[in-house]
Amino acid sequence: MEFKYERKINYYETDKMGIVHHSNYIRFLEEARCRWMDYQDISMEKMEEIGLTIPTLEIYCKYKYHVTSGDIIIIIPKIIEFNGVRMTISYKVVDKKTGKEVIEAESKHCFTDKTLKPINLKRKYEEIYIKFHNLMENYGLSK
Amino acid sequence: MEFKYERKINYYETDKMGIVHHSNYIRFLEEARCRWMDYQDISMEKMEEIGLTIPTLEIYCKYKYHVTSGDIIIIIPKIIEFNGVRMTISYKVVDKKTGKEVIEAESKHCFTDKTLKPINLKRKYEEIYIKFHNLMENYGLSK
Amino acid sequence: MEFKYERKINYYETDKMGIVHHSNYIRFLEEARCRWMDYQDISMEKMEEIGLTIPTLEIYCKYKYHVTSGDIIIIIPKIIEFNGVRMTISYKVVDKKTGKEVIEAESKHCFTDKTLKPINLKRKYEEIYIKFHNLMENYGLSK
Amino acid sequence: MEFKYERKINYYETDKMGIVHHSNYIRFLEEARCRWMDYQDISMEKMEEIGLTIPTLEIYCKYKYHVTSGDIIIIIPKIIEFNGVRMTISYKVVDKKTGKEVIEAESKHCFTDKTLKPINLKRKYEEIYIKFHNLMENYGLSK
Repeated sequence: MEFKYERKINYYETDKMGIVHHSNYIRFLEEARCRWMDYQDISMEKMEEIGLTIPTLEIYCKYKYHVTSGDIIIIIPKIIEFNGVRMTISYKVVDKKTGKEVIEAESKHCFTDKTLKPINLKRKYEEIYIKFHNLMENYGLSK
Repeated sequence: MEFKYERKINYYETDKMGIVHHSNYIRFLEEARCRWMDYQDISMEKMEEIGLTIPTLEIYCKYKYHVTSGDIIIIIPKIIEFNGVRMTISYKVVDKKTGKEVIEAESKHCFTDKTLKPINLKRKYEEIYIKFHNLMENYGLSK
Repeated sequence: MEFKYERKINYYETDKMGIVHHSNYIRFLEEARCRWMDYQDISMEKMEEIGLTIPTLEIYCKYKYHVTSGDIIIIIPKIIEFNGVRMTISYKVVDKKTGKEVIEAESKHCFTDKTLKPINLKRKYEEIYIKFHNLMENYGLSK
Repeated sequence: MEFKYERKINYYETDKMGIVHHSNYIRFLEEARCRWMDYQDISMEKMEEIGLTIPTLEIYCKYKYHVTSGDIIIIIPKIIEFNGVRMTISYKVVDKKTGKEVIEAESKHCFTDKTLKPINLKRKYEEIYIKFHNLMENYGLSK
């Protein structure tokens, strides 16, 4: 069963073009990523409690279809690369009503301590390493 | 000589009404407040270095005139109450081109340590206390 | 039955103080207001389709308790004044986990056409006038 | 003479990691792009007056160095592709104090009318076509 994050667009997320301002999608991706981690019982808040942070290293976003306030988008995140040091997530983002693909997106991350020094999950947090690793594998099998 | 903060409105600060989204003014006030503190050599960053934070306790904002991207607003902050524990700042905000008053606003703040525990500036940071106090007095005289 | 809007705090809504940046509450209030209108079948999007806009005239917010990413707030909006030309909404905002009051807030609005010219709902949109009026009355009775 | 956009980081642009939230850089790029267009006398506002809009088609951003509130970044935009229908801009973004590269970024855009229908600048707005074209050439020569 695939995780899906449904998100209604807010009025304050539009701009004078009448559509969602493109910068907000970067925030929606983070939301989807965090909700997915909540769902897998590895919430950002738990990670921060044990001293782990997951900064963003790269963002790529291709805008394909416009949505506006009141519309609902569905975001499906998927780990496509993970080795305990770095992780790449791709996102499927569609408009709930029309089914059209809204954006194509990918984000790259690393794992760090509170001072933003890189950490290898495999060495220091094996339990979390396994969780992320399994998420990747599951998605691999479902291809 | 009065401190003035000039601020050009960005595209991403508008909403689908075609004007600045009302929540952004709260951010512009913070900007003006911080730039003013920079100007007085009591920057937020310096304060944080010595362990001081200035949370916001109350915000009041009355929206009177619309501006949009490309417009420039002028913000003039003014301390109207200060006793070392709490501070009230009022803001004059006008559209540079028309001179019209854009909003009427006031913010209330306290002083805390990093754990957000209240601090009395007069007891712990007398030098900073004096700076804020003098800012209030100067404005008092100019009334 | 009272309308409640549950809202999880996002990572990007925090600031370096480690808590929600105070400007974001103004956005949460708008969200609650819009979801409430959705629930009453008078969504902002429907209103805009018939040429109606509801600008914000005033905002007051008192910050009482801090929440941060991962926390859930519950917002209960309530119309406390309405005459077809202007409307005042108050908001009860509590932290779901502790039940503590997070902010005390109020917003004032008017009704306008697309060019932001004021409209009297009673004259031009009686059906919508009645809906808002009844919302106020219901809340009046539940006091 | 190269256009440079200096931008001080605001408090509300940080997150609980203590640094600028990564989504905000997308906004800083837009700011730099718009200020640059102002400087070249082809401001977004002028373009919108004549019915032109410049939506964003793609964003790529690689995060290399952290900055926080009070820091100043310098953004230098540069048109690297332009044919009247599409445009690619790359951005050099450095920390003013250390000279370190903060992000590496690129944005792709098209030109549309108010209904977001694509426009070929060369056919409909030759004067603007020439301005953008020359900007690209100048940068080409300075390589």
